This record gives sequence, structure tokens and C-alpha cells, in this order.
Amino acid sequence: MPGRPSARWWGWGIPSGRYDPGRADRVIGHLRARLGPEGPAFAEPVDPPRPDEVDATRLDATDLDALRSVVGAGGVSVDPLERVRHSFGRSLVDELALRTRSFRPLADGVVTPSSTPQVEGIVGLAAARDLALVPWGAGSSVVGGVRADAGSHRAVLALSLERLDRLVALETTDRLATFEAGILGPDLESALHSRGFTLGQFPQSFEHSTLGGWVVTRASGQASTLYGDAAGRVVGATFVTPRGVLRFHRPVHEASGPRASGLFPGSEGVFGVLTEVTVRVEPVPASTEFRAALLPDWDSALATVRALATAAVLPAVLRASDREETELTLAARSPASGPVRRVKGRIGDAWVRRRRAAGDGPTLLVVSYEGDAETVGRGLGLFRDAARRAGGLSAGTAAGEEWRRDRFRLPYLRETLLSNGWIVETVETGATWSRLAELRRALRTAVERAGASLGVRILVGCHVSHPEPSGASLYATVLLPSQGPASAEVWSEIKHRVTESIVAAGGSVSHHHGVGVDHRAWVERGRAALELSLLERAKRELDPDDLMNPGKTLGASVRRGRSGE
Amino acid sequence: MPGRPSARWWGWGIPSGRYDPGRADRVIGHLRARLGPEGPAFAEPVDPPRPDEVDATRLDATDLDALRSVVGAGGVSVDPLERVRHSFGRSLVDELALRTRSFRPLADGVVTPSSTPQVEGIVGLAAARDLALVPWGAGSSVVGGVRADAGSHRAVLALSLERLDRLVALETTDRLATFEAGILGPDLESALHSRGFTLGQFPQSFEHSTLGGWVVTRASGQASTLYGDAAGRVVGATFVTPRGVLRFHRPVHEASGPRASGLFPGSEGVFGVLTEVTVRVEPVPASTEFRAALLPDWDSALATVRALATAAVLPAVLRASDREETELTLAARSPASGPVRRVKGRIGDAWVRRRRAAGDGPTLLVVSYEGDAETVGRGLGLFRDAARRAGGLSAGTAAGEEWRRDRFRLPYLRETLLSNGWIVETVETGATWSRLAELRRALRTAVERAGASLGVRILVGCHVSHPEPSGASLYATVLLPSQGPASAEVWSEIKHRVTESIVAAGGSVSHHHGVGVDHRAWVERGRAALELSLLERAKRELDPDDLMNPGKTLGASVRRGRSGE
Repeated sequence: MPGRPSARWWGWGIPSGRYDPGRADRVIGHLRARLGPEGPAFAEPVDPPRPDEVDATRLDATDLDALRSVVGAGGVSVDPLERVRHSFGRSLVDELALRTRSFRPLADGVVTPSSTPQVEGIVGLAAARDLALVPWGAGSSVVGGVRADAGSHRAVLALSLERLDRLVALETTDRLATFEAGILGPDLESALHSRGFTLGQFPQSFEHSTLGGWVVTRASGQASTLYGDAAGRVVGATFVTPRGVLRFHRPVHEASGPRASGLFPGSEGVFGVLTEVTVRVEPVPASTEFRAALLPDWDSALATVRALATAAVLPAVLRASDREETELTLAARSPASGPVRRVKGRIGDAWVRRRRAAGDGPTLLVVSYEGDAETVGRGLGLFRDAARRAGGLSAGTAAGEEWRRDRFRLPYLRETLLSNGWIVETVETGATWSRLAELRRALRTAVERAGASLGVRILVGCHVSHPEPSGASLYATVLLPSQGPASAEVWSEIKHRVTESIVAAGGSVSHHHGVGVDHRAWVERGRAALELSLLERAKRELDPDDLMNPGKTLGASVRRGRSGE
Repeated sequence: MPGRPSARWWGWGIPSGRYDPGRADRVIGHLRARLGPEGPAFAEPVDPPRPDEVDATRLDATDLDALRSVVGAGGVSVDPLERVRHSFGRSLVDELALRTRSFRPLADGVVTPSSTPQVEGIVGLAAARDLALVPWGAGSSVVGGVRADAGSHRAVLALSLERLDRLVALETTDRLATFEAGILGPDLESALHSRGFTLGQFPQSFEHSTLGGWVVTRASGQASTLYGDAAGRVVGATFVTPRGVLRFHRPVHEASGPRASGLFPGSEGVFGVLTEVTVRVEPVPASTEFRAALLPDWDSALATVRALATAAVLPAVLRASDREETELTLAARSPASGPVRRVKGRIGDAWVRRRRAAGDGPTLLVVSYEGDAETVGRGLGLFRDAARRAGGLSAGTAAGEEWRRDRFRLPYLRETLLSNGWIVETVETGATWSRLAELRRALRTAVERAGASLGVRILVGCHVSHPEPSGASLYATVLLPSQGPASAEVWSEIKHRVTESIVAAGGSVSHHHGVGVDHRAWVERGRAALELSLLERAKRELDPDDLMNPGKTLGASVRRGRSGE
């Protein structure tokens, strides 16, 4: 395959990625201080999956010959490691399964086409041979979006887009780039950067997620305040469905009647496979500056984020952590490291102590501005004024730069924690500004109650991020001692309670993680029967045999034909 | 009805609106100089439609009683004037029909609900009594979008949204406003302005078009470069369909699966009636400044518009006229009026003469910046630099302000022209930057050829407007001597040829006028069978009896069931 680094088969990200061990040690120290001792550790797997550990493939020689006739011998694999690698996302539950070598459900094979016509061939074959297809970009789903469910079919294939990773065209005058959908974040940005452009999409999974994945899950990047989300930048697409190929191309505003293209963002593979995407790109900014500040409390943090997200110059990244997350962030730093010492030194810890005593502060705010020097200068001025008005303290350039440097590193911390007897998972939602304060209270209360009722010590830290004029995302990191073999079940119970509380408080089921299988019950509950019925019609039209990613997102209700209710 | 001014029944706009007679005289002088004598005049109608001039209503007493039981006696009318008022848009062909008192097709009655439940009641009645419904906002469609087609039904009602004209809620913290869909532009802006907000949507039909109309036609306002289009600002909607009410509300980004809400923008009433809309609003800018400049030629105008539409500070309005349109604009001005004298005086006409001699200049560019003083100042600086770089001449503040003052006046000119033996209509399209120059050439060539083959003298002036990073709209105004009774037919032939040329050159069928009946053949031709099939499924699900605005937008292909082809 063309130069693509394989992801770690049992955990987050790329093999060279890891969370700094010193910082991890300090985080563990913080957790011990706050929650007491750790639980049973989950060791990192050493050996790849062995043939005797996995179910035998249900693909027969006829299937394999037929698949090879479409993609060549090198494009089909039933190797246990390849099957495992392409059957799990990266949720806590996925990782617990992988670390405990519990390899189910498992794709019966992996097929890796290298062109849209090859994808058409595979989809045709799947219909003819009763095979389900799970489109697979890079496997970073944290909601079960790539789970290898066969649905009602004889077997299930992971349809990997790894080889669909090219820049097809860059029209510099029109600022439009066409990519194959399986291109990874770093490859996409490097192809654009060399021509002076950027897409501005930097989800935390950037290193091992794809443009196509961002679009079909409605993912958001860290710089969404300036660049919007990937789906919002799409002006053209090629979708391969079991009923044929749908192409959309509308690079400029049109008033040309209703469109079906709106059905695809968020569809998570249930209507077909996105193979090519045309996106609006932007020139690489002349400069980018990150800054951080400590603010007195959560209310002032929320107000400051809202003010900056609706100001004359928009930031790119803008986020504020609550006290628990701020403490965790500060704890991770070396006591001798620059930013903390500088802030704390200057004020002799008194300010921070006062904030702690006063209630729910301090809170760490991180912001970036990008563009020409004048734009960035004006943005930084707005930031300084807003932080001062809020009674905050500048944490200087270094703390902001530190966040930038580590922006894709944090998820690797889970690996160290699991190996040391701690489990961690994230929950995210979004809401309008007027609901966000209450949403966090509700979420925290739900975590506390879950902890009490399950007899588990839990720490939860939140941040507000991805702000837009009407609201933002609220993102919670939940940490607790490993519960040994009960870990997945305990976490699922916490997650269930927290999601119920989020929905009751007017938050969305997911701001940017997607639906997969984990969120579908809540998403379905929130939809009108008539809307489900419209989506069911679309599903029947495009994928009448339910070959495509069966059971994902709204797939369940669609398959049951809820419109008849 | 609550304070709503009636539109002129036979022509454009509100009764108090008119184009300045002195300017109109000078335009006519220019047309005579360029095209020779006028043709037969179409006089302004004096008397309202008389009962003997219109087809008898097909509504019977049972229909009327049933309708009155839903909306009250005052909400139903079979008065000839009301029927005529609600059965025609404002295309040239519509206006020719009205001036020649040719009142077909005609709605059998007008029903005016004042709430979403009343709209539901009417839709239910329509199904029960075999009546087609044409949703009617303010009747400014220039593409036949409100034509009173009964389809296969016994009779047709205009469903007027005039009484659905309230601000329902304004959430200032979240910058969200909910309106009933029938609110007119000025009422919407005045309700928002008094609370410090604006929607930023100023289509040329602003005075007599509605929020709901802007959304379902995908209209664009003159300030779309800064505010986007109305449909793009919608985060919530209530649609009444024959199969029930669909409500959408998604004020903040979500990753919650595929949505059916994308089917509604551009649907032009064929799926149901939009009764309520929640939109993102913006604070009223502290200042707004308009400026104008003369640029040497069309290529420099296009390049300047593109540069300003992709600069660090975005303009609100930005448009550049080609030489023909610039000459027409300059001709309309009093020779003694400030802007022209100032520009011409300073340079002794020499610059303008040189541009004319050199080819396709001068071209008039108009721009506005809005926001705080710093933003506006920076924008104006970018504008001055760009105009200077292009070898242009500042036309000063007054010429820009003049454009702002007259921004909704120009369409009224048609009334004076028709009364004086001239016909005028507009054609619009959109394309990427890299296609725009060729698109204008193709459009002009098509007009010239049409003129030669039809033996008609035609003048066509174009402007580029609504720029966005990837492209813009191209808008053409076509003027010719009245052809008497053959005028509609001659125009239709010109329009057909021009639209063919636009599509062949890669332009969209419509940038912001919509589809209606006039554009549907081209729109259908441009869609894949599978997309039409998806839209047909949606139509069958929501409006299985084809009650809603039959035959509009993609209604024809949907009704014929093209998916079977």
C-alpha cells in the first residue's frame, strides 16, 4: 500500500504516537490523590491475534475469487491480524475487548479497492453473494461505527478505503480540492500545504482518520470556529450505493430545486460508500498564534468563550476547561515547566488558591488566531481584553503552544492508564449558550449519582469547545479505577446514565463523535416518525437489501420499517 | 390583515414604489440611441379584474364552508382581484399577461390561515376535497413558482401566508430568532432591528418577499458575501405536509446521523408548506459604508471582485457591472448629479473615453463593508488598494450611497419601460471563478444570435455579484423594443437560447431566482436518475396525492415517476 503507516492494532493512533511517560506518571499521581488506588491493570497485547483466537472466516473460495477478480489478489485479506485491525473502533469498550483478546464480532475479510469502479464492483458482489459491507476509513470511531456487524447476511467484509488516498485535483483559482475519501489527515494537509492551502480540519484523531470519515460522521476539527466542519466544506461527492453511483457537484450557491445530497452527511455508510470528495480549501495562514489564560470560574470561562466566538475577528481554536480538567492539565505538567511556574511564580499561588477556595475555578482557556499579521494582532488584542475583563490571568504563549504541540497526543494517555489500572472515556454533547451551564451541571450530577449507585470513585472534567455564534460543544473526560472484567459493563452503565441526563438537559446526543451503534437508540428517540420514514425511504431506494453498514446510525429503525408505527 | 401593504396587483412591488421618472426618461433615451425606436406600449391597467374577465371559481359551497370552518369567513376569498393577485408572479411573462388582462391560470380561491394548525387544517381539507394548494408568500417569483396550476385536481387554492407574519421568539444570548414564514423583509428587519439584530438578507424583492420564500427558493440577498443565504441561516423549521408536520431544530452543530431536513431548501412548496423558521441572526453593524469605483475592463473587474471576496475582511455587498450595464447606470443619472460629474470632471472624460476605446470598459464596481469602525476601515483600505492595483478610479462615496438608496428600486423601471414600448427581463446563473469570463461570453453570444435570428435589436448588460470564495453569480439584464402581442413568445425564445448557452458553458440553471416552472426542464436534465428517484420517494412519502404546488421545481419528473426510466 502506498506509504500508509499501519495503525496500532490494539489501541489508539499511530505506532510512533505516545503520551509522555513523565506526564502520564503525574496524571496517575493526581488520580491516586483524588480517587484512591487504581484497579486491575489491562496489559498491552504483545502478540498479534492468532488463527486459533478468531472465528474462521465465513468467506468461501468462490467469494474470495470473486473479490480478487475485482481488486486483485493483494486487495483481499483473511489474515487474523488484518481482520482484527479492521473490525474495531477506538472506544474504551473496543480497547478493552482488544486488550483482553476478545475478537468478536469480526469481519470475515478485508477488501481494499483502489478506485471508485472497484468499489462499485465490490458493492455489486456484496449484493450478489449476500455479504454485508462495513466501510472503513482508518478505524478511529469511538461509537461503534465500524463494528463488523453482518446484519442478516451470510458474512461481513470490512471495505477499507486505505488505497483511495490521492489528491485528484486542486483548482487554485476556485479554491477547490478533490480527494479520494480515504486520505488521512496528515496526507491531506501535506498535499494541500505544498500548494499553499489548508482544509482547516484537525480533529483529535487527525493522524488516523480520513476526509471521508469526517464527512460521513459530521466530525468537527479543533479549529471549527474558523473553518466550520468538514461536511460544511463539501461541494461535491461521489457515493457508491447498491443502486448506483450518485455524484453531486455544486461548487457555488444555486437555487436549483431540492437536493438529495443533504442525506449523506452523517449517514455513516448506511446508504453507500463515499469515495471522492470536493472541498473548499483556504490559503495557509501567514501566521498562527496560540495563547492561554486562567479565568476565575466556569461562568466567566463560558462568557469569555461566547464573547470571543462572536467577536469581529474569529479565533480558530477556542476552548475552556472547567476546574477539574484544568487541575488535571496542570497536574500533568512538570512542576519545573515554564508555563505553570511563570503563572504561579508571578502570583505566588495566591490567585489560584483563591479561585479554588471561591468554588469552581481556576479554568484554563486556550485560543488561537490565524491569518495575516493584522488579523492575528487584532484577535490577540480581543483575547487579552476579554481575559482581563473576566478577571483572568494570562498564562502566556508557552501554555498555548504546549496545547498546540500536544493537540493530538492526549488520547494516547488512555493506553498508559489502562496498563496501570485506570480507565478513561469521553462523552460529548452540544447545546446553545443558554443551556450550556445547566448541561454541565446535569452531566456532573449524573456522573456523581452513577458513581454512588455503582460504588465507583469517578473524576469528571469538562471543557467547552468548538464554539459557534449560537452555542458550543461540551466535552467530558471521565476517569475511574479499572473495574477489572466488569470495566466495560460499569462504563456502559455510566455512559447510559450520562447520556440520559444530557438529552434531558437539552444537549445533543453527539456534537462530533457520531452515532455508530452506541448512540442510535437516543438519536432514533429524538426523531419524528415522519423523518425516520423519509430516511427509511432513502435507505430502501439506495440499499434495499441492507448491505451497507447494517445497524449503524439509524439503520436499526430503518430496517424495522418504523414508518408503519 | 395586520398592517400588511397590498402589493400592486399588476406589477412589481409595493404601491408606493416607483422608479424615478427623470432617470427612466434618460434610460429610454439611452435605449433609443442604442436600439432605435420602441415598440407598441403595454398600458398600466386601471380597473381591477372584473367578474366577467375571470373563469368562474370551481369551488362549491361545500368547499367554501369547509375552508371557512378552518380559517374563518375572513380567511377565504373568491373575489376576482384577490384571485388574480395570488395567481401570478412577477416575471415579464406574468406582467405581460396582467397588463393584457389575460388572467389564466387562475386560483379558484385564496385561503389565508393565521397559524400552523390552520395550515394543517387546510392541507387536510385539500386532500379530502381534491384541491391543489399553491403556497404563496408575497408573489415575487420570477420563474412561475406561484402559478396557479391545479395539476390533476378539481380546483386550486392559493394558500397565502400573509397572516403568518409574526416574530415568535428572539433568543438574544443564542442569536436565534423564530419567525412565522410569511413575514415580509421589512417587517422582519424592523422586528430584529429594534432588538439590535439583523438577518442580513436583502434580495432585490426585499419589500415584497418573505422569509419562507427566501428559504424554500434558496434565494440570496445582496449582502450574501457576508451573511450567506437565508437557507444557510436556518437552524429550525416547521413544515406542514399532507402526511403530517415535520419539525427540525438543530441550532448547534451535531453529529447525530443523516437528516431529512436537507430536502426542504429549494423545495418550493412541492413537499409541503413552511410555516415557521428559526434563523441565526447577527448584531446590527455599528457602521456600514458603501463605495464605488470605475475599473478599466471586465477582466480587471472580475479579478478585483474575486480578490475582495477572498480577502481578510469580507465585504457585505460586492458587485461589478460590465460596460453595457455601466453605461446604462451612468446614463440613468442626471448629467448634473454629483458622482458622475465628480468622476468625469476630475479626469475630463479622457479616462472613460480611453476605456471605451480599449474595449470592454469602464466597469462600475460597488462594495459595502459593515461592522465596527476598525473592520470597516480595514475593508475600505483593501478596496482602495485593490481598485488602485486594477488601474481603477474611485467614484467616491456618493456613487456607492446612490446604489444603496436605489437597491430595491431598479425592478420598478420595468413598469415605466412596458408603458413606453420596451421590454426588459433578467437572466441569472452562477459558476466558479474559472468559468465566469467564458460564461459571460457565451451568454452574450447567445443573446446576439437570438437577436439576429429573431430580427430583434437587443441590449444586454451583465454584472457579477454574490461572490463567494469559489465563484459568483452572473446576472444579465436584457432589454429590447416591445414586440407587441408577440412579446412573451419572443422573450421565451431568447430565454430558451440563453439558458441553453449558460448550461453548456457550465453555469447553473439558477443562482438565486429558483426553478418554478420556467427552469424545471433544465434542472431535471442536470440531475442523475438516482437523485430524481430519491426525491420522488420523498414526494410520495410526504405528498402522495401531489396536492402541493403541482408541477413546480422537480414536480413534473416526480409525478411521472422518472425513477422507472
